[in-house]
Amino acid sequence: MGLFTKDIRTLDDLFVHQLQDIYYAEKQLVKALPKMADKATAPPLKQGFLDHLKETENHVTRLEQVFKMHGAQVKAVECPAIDGIIKEANETAGEVTDKAVLDAALINAAQAAEHYEITRYGSLVAWAKQLGRNDCASILQQTLSEEKAADQKLTSLAESKINVRAAS
Amino acid sequence: MGLFTKDIRTLDDLFVHQLQDIYYAEKQLVKALPKMADKATAPPLKQGFLDHLKETENHVTRLEQVFKMHGAQVKAVECPAIDGIIKEANETAGEVTDKAVLDAALINAAQAAEHYEITRYGSLVAWAKQLGRNDCASILQQTLSEEKAADQKLTSLAESKINVRAAS
Repeated sequence: MGLFTKDIRTLDDLFVHQLQDIYYAEKQLVKALPKMADKATAPPLKQGFLDHLKETENHVTRLEQVFKMHGAQVKAVECPAIDGIIKEANETAGEVTDKAVLDAALINAAQAAEHYEITRYGSLVAWAKQLGRNDCASILQQTLSEEKAADQKLTSLAESKINVRAAS
Repeated sequence: MGLFTKDIRTLDDLFVHQLQDIYYAEKQLVKALPKMADKATAPPLKQGFLDHLKETENHVTRLEQVFKMHGAQVKAVECPAIDGIIKEANETAGEVTDKAVLDAALINAAQAAEHYEITRYGSLVAWAKQLGRNDCASILQQTLSEEKAADQKLTSLAESKINVRAAS
């Protein structure tokens, strides 16, 4: 969607635009997560990224399902926010020399992506309900719950293991 | 901080880098919030942005305090994540024709910024504690609590008023 095309006239248009935005973001994360798993050293973090990759692939499929249920074209629009989050993750990771500290930086990067998704899915669920699309809201809520759980797992892992090792 | 300068060797370095990153982000938000208040139509949303501007200015001051307490130079490093979030907010807002729908888009944009800050301050608090800097953690925790409260206020406002008006 180009700049100043004034394509968004209704909440329904905004809902579809946001679906296209998060669809792009999820697809970028499908590419980024294997690279993050490669860089991670601690086995539970590496495994956590690989597990979340499977979930993320499933989120892409769910979004395609929501597009279809809502009668909208399955389409991605560029999402500068997720591009910025991934760019920043790569830049910071590129500056870290110590492997344990890199793990702490990778968790921090992954949580920025999770939080971005949590806020977007939060709005999508609220908008779907407002638009009377409880069927779409229910599918989007499943993903929102998984993103929150993934974020919580990363916090636990950071506080119980990764930060301790990074500080030692 | 440049690419591949390998400046981050310890968790302490990562903590300072992240302080510099969120310092940049908060300063960008001090510039962005008055523009969002200008664009907002619903009076409680407009006021909410102006109230949060005051809080954000205070967050900048608190960060300067933490830099000094930690013996680090007060410095900002470019943060592609917040730049991406603000760019996306401007692009999306530029595409919305209806004022009530624009308010819904503005809340969504503001919540993306809030969530970015929540994740960054969450890591900063955890890292400060791990580094034995409970004094810094305590100040950063105040900001984290305010960011969470601001996000919650935006959700309540969206669900009680803004989304209802945008859908009508």
